[in-house]
Amino acid sequence: MRVDIISAVPEILESPINYSIIKRAREKGVVAIHLHNLHDYAEGKYRQIDDKPYGGGSGMVLKPEPIYRCIKKLTAERDYNEIILTSAKGEIFSQNDAKIFSLYNNIIIICGHYKGVDQRVVELTKAREISIGKYVLSGGELPALIILDAIIRLIPGAIGDGESALTDSFIEGNNIEAPIYTRPKIFEGLKVPEILLKGDHTKIKNWKEQISSKS
Amino acid sequence: MRVDIISAVPEILESPINYSIIKRAREKGVVAIHLHNLHDYAEGKYRQIDDKPYGGGSGMVLKPEPIYRCIKKLTAERDYNEIILTSAKGEIFSQNDAKIFSLYNNIIIICGHYKGVDQRVVELTKAREISIGKYVLSGGELPALIILDAIIRLIPGAIGDGESALTDSFIEGNNIEAPIYTRPKIFEGLKVPEILLKGDHTKIKNWKEQISSKS
Repeated sequence: MRVDIISAVPEILESPINYSIIKRAREKGVVAIHLHNLHDYAEGKYRQIDDKPYGGGSGMVLKPEPIYRCIKKLTAERDYNEIILTSAKGEIFSQNDAKIFSLYNNIIIICGHYKGVDQRVVELTKAREISIGKYVLSGGELPALIILDAIIRLIPGAIGDGESALTDSFIEGNNIEAPIYTRPKIFEGLKVPEILLKGDHTKIKNWKEQISSKS
Repeated sequence: MRVDIISAVPEILESPINYSIIKRAREKGVVAIHLHNLHDYAEGKYRQIDDKPYGGGSGMVLKPEPIYRCIKKLTAERDYNEIILTSAKGEIFSQNDAKIFSLYNNIIIICGHYKGVDQRVVELTKAREISIGKYVLSGGELPALIILDAIIRLIPGAIGDGESALTDSFIEGNNIEAPIYTRPKIFEGLKVPEILLKGDHTKIKNWKEQISSKS
């Protein structure tokens, strides 16, 4: 998979893509990430990328020209399955979206600004506006990384078998898991539940399901 | 506000806290961020921080000792208003949580692993498990940054007046905003809505509310 990320502050993205699962997936050749600095697509002496909103209001809006210029360049080079815009007014990102996106060959993620992007960019590029949750953030770079992480770990070969994404309870839309424990058996006076220490996998499975359904 | 972040891979956090709103808030003295590498709190020759889960299953679980040792050290030094654990099985983070957290003096954020943290750490530290959304991520570092971004921008002085967090429509729990536009008036044949170009603020306000309520 090829992912092109368009950002006004691509520096924010550096350490996450160089240290996490994203790095491992890149090294394995499972994903290639290309960062595009919006300032490189801006024109004029000041390479302005944002401007005041029409109709008043606080905050700055990302201008349409630089983003559109960048996307035109990329889409002339190859076909993209989806253009995503991280946006506070987008639909809420779900595990099902991550599954669908993980099957794509090429995607573009535009990192929105807190205040937003000129609406005409959305219309012209048919970008899909996606929000990662009902809270306000200052920019779209962290949401872009969240979406990327969720997608990448579903691509076969991105993570080790031991961490296999296919065993996730989330996969079935179940957001709840039983508590987990590791060694030592007793820590600060607290014991690991007896059932987990015995090797009866049917009983363990039932116990986990019982707890998950209770939550 | 002081924020202590406990992570197995603090390197992931470096560029976001050094380039975004978080950086500006740090420079203004609004927030101080302290990163703690879990490996520094591990013992033994291999400084092991994770281990296999009791009862079987794939993936590794963060051991209780290093996290507990780090938290004991921090809580001996000062009082904390909240200990947050980023966790797939936590309650979903909301703007209301961000508002409450923004009033705190000291918080600890423990970055969970994909698979999780030994449950006894949660019990002993009374950590509040928080999830940023219903999707699976490989680690808790990006969610910790999301929570941090949402909190910091609400602290007075963290962002400029022009971006004032108090004017956010989100603040009132409204996740929908009207489309926004900036110059030029015509871009690729698409015009900015007439109403936004005239200076009638009552009409503009009504127009925005009408669109928001329609969505």
